Amino acid sequence: MERNIYDDETFFSSYSSMTRSRLGLTGAGEWASLEPLIPDVAGLRILDLGCGFGWHAAYFAKHGALDIDAVDISERMLGKARQINNDAKIRYMLCDIEAFSAGDESYDLVFSSLAMHYVRNYRLLVSRIYKWLRKNGTFLFSFEHPAFTAEGSEDWFYDEEGGILHFPLDNYFSEGIRETHFLGSIIPKYHRTLTTYVSALLEAGFTLTGLVEPEVPEHLKTLDEMKNEWRRPMMLIIRAEKR
Amino acid sequence: MERNIYDDETFFSSYSSMTRSRLGLTGAGEWASLEPLIPDVAGLRILDLGCGFGWHAAYFAKHGALDIDAVDISERMLGKARQINNDAKIRYMLCDIEAFSAGDESYDLVFSSLAMHYVRNYRLLVSRIYKWLRKNGTFLFSFEHPAFTAEGSEDWFYDEEGGILHFPLDNYFSEGIRETHFLGSIIPKYHRTLTTYVSALLEAGFTLTGLVEPEVPEHLKTLDEMKNEWRRPMMLIIRAEKR
Repeated sequence: MERNIYDDETFFSSYSSMTRSRLGLTGAGEWASLEPLIPDVAGLRILDLGCGFGWHAAYFAKHGALDIDAVDISERMLGKARQINNDAKIRYMLCDIEAFSAGDESYDLVFSSLAMHYVRNYRLLVSRIYKWLRKNGTFLFSFEHPAFTAEGSEDWFYDEEGGILHFPLDNYFSEGIRETHFLGSIIPKYHRTLTTYVSALLEAGFTLTGLVEPEVPEHLKTLDEMKNEWRRPMMLIIRAEKR
Repeated sequence: MERNIYDDETFFSSYSSMTRSRLGLTGAGEWASLEPLIPDVAGLRILDLGCGFGWHAAYFAKHGALDIDAVDISERMLGKARQINNDAKIRYMLCDIEAFSAGDESYDLVFSSLAMHYVRNYRLLVSRIYKWLRKNGTFLFSFEHPAFTAEGSEDWFYDEEGGILHFPLDNYFSEGIRETHFLGSIIPKYHRTLTTYVSALLEAGFTLTGLVEPEVPEHLKTLDEMKNEWRRPMMLIIRAEKR
């Protein structure tokens, strides 16, 4: 990810006002689907790729993780993380996910929340994560759903009165960069097929042990930003293990 | 599948004229993706659920399978299969997929081509298939992609001049019956999320060893019926093993 939109003042301000940024994990629509997939973290060494405000790192610390390396490319994000989710067990690091490296068998859990669609060479990163994990280690990550990233705008298709008709699906097998619209900014992301996301894991040696498209939980369904989420998948969560 | 459209004379005639029906496996867009996922079938006992014209059953017979139980609900389909893909090793059976039953550990490979979206209780069928398989057995199946079945029409969204704008995605998390348009008929199918397709396999005890969204191979790209296939995923192929 070359351009670092999260360090843009206007974008950062908009991002900070989202429900998920203000409330943390309980304000994130996917948390109810993600939490059951997290292994018992007591005593684990954890790597968090794209840690953002540190909500997940703090959760791991609170639930007994041994230590957490939390990596993010944005200084602003890390600044806020150190402020609201500070913990002696968390080491926040300013680093591009694809520039990060670690020794073989350094971690028991590699976690990543909504960052893999910013990664240019996903297949290479997956093979490196496999090496960084110990035997029986887990790679758990959420990312934007291929059906959501394919067309390019990440926006609904509207009728003349501005009502939602449906979500447009297009360009699916054309992998590569997309200039998506989010919070008034243009955010470059990488579209990849589901085939690529899953087969890279299997080819690296991982065993797939979970695949979930999160649905909005009851307590968030009344939020205006959530009311159409049942109409198309927006995220995908995958758990893979090194056996 | 209560209504048996494949026994309708008009529909059957249209279906029979499709490239995949006339040419068999080489005329099917997904075959180039499917064949590499087939295990070495020499000496295997195979069940083919929804065998249609018997192209796959004949392929298995030709490649040394011990015997093949080939099940289909349509008399017309089986009539044609017996005529063009007859083989002493193939036992064609008129039976609804969901009414079929077998003894535990009867098969080494359970195969199904484009039939699982007609199945009402997929989760139950998967748990039964797991029992029918021997240890180290394989369940390999193709089905219509959840992003393709979700909205309901299985048709593109067109502009005023009849040009394709994109494919509509909608109703994704609303699982259940869809009245799809195919070859001038209304075909009832079941939409399920990707989460349901994969998690039912994992919960039954399967190990996922392949997941591919087939792309149209070079030799079929010039066909008019294939030229927009790169724009949205239409099928998904999954291989799961009993370990």
